[in-house]
Amino acid sequence: MSSEVTTDLVEKLKRKLSKGNVQWVEKTLKELHPADIAEIINQIPEEYKLEVLKFLDEEIISDVVAELEEDEREELLSKLSAKEIAENVVQHMESDDAADLVAELDEHKKNEVIEALTDEEQASDIIDLLSYPENSAGALMAKELIKVNINWTVHECIVELRKQAEEVENIHTVYAVDNQEKLMGRISLKHLIISSPQTIVEEIVTREIKTVVATADENEVVSKMEKYDLVVIPVINENQVLLGRITIDDVVDVMKEEAEKDYQMASGISENVEYSDNVFQLTKARFPWLLVGLAGGVMGAKIIGIFGIIEKTPVIAYFMPLIAAMGGNVGVQSSAIVVQSIANNSLRGSTYKKLLKELGVGMFNGLLCSVILLIFNLIFNDDTALSLSVSLSLFAVIIFAAVFGTWIPLVLHKYKIDPALATGPFITTSNDIIGLLLYLSICQLLL
Amino acid sequence: MSSEVTTDLVEKLKRKLSKGNVQWVEKTLKELHPADIAEIINQIPEEYKLEVLKFLDEEIISDVVAELEEDEREELLSKLSAKEIAENVVQHMESDDAADLVAELDEHKKNEVIEALTDEEQASDIIDLLSYPENSAGALMAKELIKVNINWTVHECIVELRKQAEEVENIHTVYAVDNQEKLMGRISLKHLIISSPQTIVEEIVTREIKTVVATADENEVVSKMEKYDLVVIPVINENQVLLGRITIDDVVDVMKEEAEKDYQMASGISENVEYSDNVFQLTKARFPWLLVGLAGGVMGAKIIGIFGIIEKTPVIAYFMPLIAAMGGNVGVQSSAIVVQSIANNSLRGSTYKKLLKELGVGMFNGLLCSVILLIFNLIFNDDTALSLSVSLSLFAVIIFAAVFGTWIPLVLHKYKIDPALATGPFITTSNDIIGLLLYLSICQLLL
Repeated sequence: MSSEVTTDLVEKLKRKLSKGNVQWVEKTLKELHPADIAEIINQIPEEYKLEVLKFLDEEIISDVVAELEEDEREELLSKLSAKEIAENVVQHMESDDAADLVAELDEHKKNEVIEALTDEEQASDIIDLLSYPENSAGALMAKELIKVNINWTVHECIVELRKQAEEVENIHTVYAVDNQEKLMGRISLKHLIISSPQTIVEEIVTREIKTVVATADENEVVSKMEKYDLVVIPVINENQVLLGRITIDDVVDVMKEEAEKDYQMASGISENVEYSDNVFQLTKARFPWLLVGLAGGVMGAKIIGIFGIIEKTPVIAYFMPLIAAMGGNVGVQSSAIVVQSIANNSLRGSTYKKLLKELGVGMFNGLLCSVILLIFNLIFNDDTALSLSVSLSLFAVIIFAAVFGTWIPLVLHKYKIDPALATGPFITTSNDIIGLLLYLSICQLLL
Repeated sequence: MSSEVTTDLVEKLKRKLSKGNVQWVEKTLKELHPADIAEIINQIPEEYKLEVLKFLDEEIISDVVAELEEDEREELLSKLSAKEIAENVVQHMESDDAADLVAELDEHKKNEVIEALTDEEQASDIIDLLSYPENSAGALMAKELIKVNINWTVHECIVELRKQAEEVENIHTVYAVDNQEKLMGRISLKHLIISSPQTIVEEIVTREIKTVVATADENEVVSKMEKYDLVVIPVINENQVLLGRITIDDVVDVMKEEAEKDYQMASGISENVEYSDNVFQLTKARFPWLLVGLAGGVMGAKIIGIFGIIEKTPVIAYFMPLIAAMGGNVGVQSSAIVVQSIANNSLRGSTYKKLLKELGVGMFNGLLCSVILLIFNLIFNDDTALSLSVSLSLFAVIIFAAVFGTWIPLVLHKYKIDPALATGPFITTSNDIIGLLLYLSICQLLL
């Protein structure tokens, strides 16, 4: 019932394209979903990409272009004139996709494309959508929606629906507005179908609906749609006037980006990068965190030098990497759990209680690890005093790292700083240093 | 237009409940969305939780219970008899939520609840859904959907729709089946509304639709719905017979779990834990990775001992933590980018090319860090030979860690092992050890 993109299919297509077998290519592409065609374009050599687009119907081209990866789209659009972009691509797009695409162009080409649009309303919709700040609900929304007046009958609604339906590809819901265009509620298609034609909209409208204001942050949109299991949410201005709607597929993209950002932070990558980015971009995203680690390492070296204990008892050095690494590991674990709870809005109760709980986890894990290490050292090393010092230090470092790793993201969150900053290299580095300090102090006392 | 849960509201509710101000509580709860009421129940003391449920209409109770967090729900249901659960909660739920809830009960209560259901069809739906393996499309789907015969007229469809609509809360799409119940396609509500009543379904049916087989893995459902921007996907068996449908809100939950799992892996947490889990569960999820770190640390200590170089030149020890930490940091960065690309299906091109690129990034970052460290050491330390050795080692370690961190997840992925396993403590620990080996070897050669 549905065909998917396989490596075989891509290879066969490349062969047919190189042989100029137009008929086979055209027929094959016709049977594919735009998302599949986009996937194919991502995978074929540069010279065939534009050629593939030429085999497609006008309406399909815009869907395919919308599904392309950003760098592929940029590359492809750079080969088209403003007029071609306007007529063959933007014209058939829904307003949100069109605005996203235009936003990616440089200032000059952006204006050319907007001027080349023959549909005045579409041009003004795009200009309007571009005016909202990035990451706002307004920037996410599409203008296409079905709205009816709250005083109409169901029959009038259906007539209007038939008229508007030409323009709107998917009808998610029908919105009811008053004479001032203020949003009054929504009518489900189910109710339109099962109500008698003479029913007044007001009688079947659902007034209790969730909305977002156009200036709201996109994260507010995500959490509302997620919490209330919404497929579409209407966007209003501060006077309740209906401006547009946001559908769940756009929100899924925002959610994914957010999750990726946290993951990258935890792994010590400071910017949103993808594997396809070039070496320079990848280096830039990673270097800042490495600098943090480097500074920490230099500080650690200084501290070891100041203690001057290695010169007297070199064997102390053997366990320095172990102590530093364990402090880092425990710290990252602790902060990751807090960061995730904050992201999920599932963090409740007082800071005091949280630290107490983490103290418990730290004591458990610290005790387990220290005892295992002690047994190992007592069997394989002769030095009982050193073995005891190492295990005692490990215990102290694990407890400290657990509490510290919990506390830092809570503090950042309190001061409205992204707590994910705390995970990864930052926590690892501070725990490395503090671990060394604890270890060397305990050794100095006991040995 | 919509009221949200604030700390003030929760506090006020607690006061009113303790004073027995029934009217205010009932009125306030009536205006709230089930998801909001669930949020309130999560936040109020144990003794009021059941009481709040009693103020709600029967249909609302099941929605609220479905929205509760798993441990809250378990707690609450343990206080209700099987009959109460069946009549007041399960009876009003859609089949997927009902099956999820029943699955959480212990074996004995599960059977009691199913027996206590008065609706035979619902009971058999639940039993059927419970028979699918966890994490399969079948376990995710709901049985409620609107289906019509492909030979009917639009008028017959609307009559059927009116009949079925009583049972189905949200109509996402109407499915067309043949006389053998085989799925033939879907009809949009838009088409039903705008077509004339005499039209035969066959003429307006969209045959090209995406489906999943009930035994497919839930990740296949996620990637299909995401790729094709679907709000709902029909589930069929191997004979194309329509069994149910999966909606996007359930898939969003699966997506979130997957992203969380990767994040936890990168942070060294082996099981899906939440902050609300108890100290023992949290310890258990974190201990395995700490053992990996511990074993690595012990190996590191052995290696340092075997080299025996610290005894002769103790100052070498000063930079051991720095070298180990930088190797760990770079390794985690590299593997995180690969893991994320694999998760996004955006990894293309040969392994050879990927390693070459990572070599480039490693060389850039390695060079930058080594030169910075060299300048610093030459200014603040007298020992030129040591400064050179440390910087050279850092360069070597960063390059090695970058390539190794890229290679390991690619290998795991090739052998169908979750590449996220590679990130976090595993990469950190191996790079710690290999970093030490490289550093000590270079020092032995140069000093």
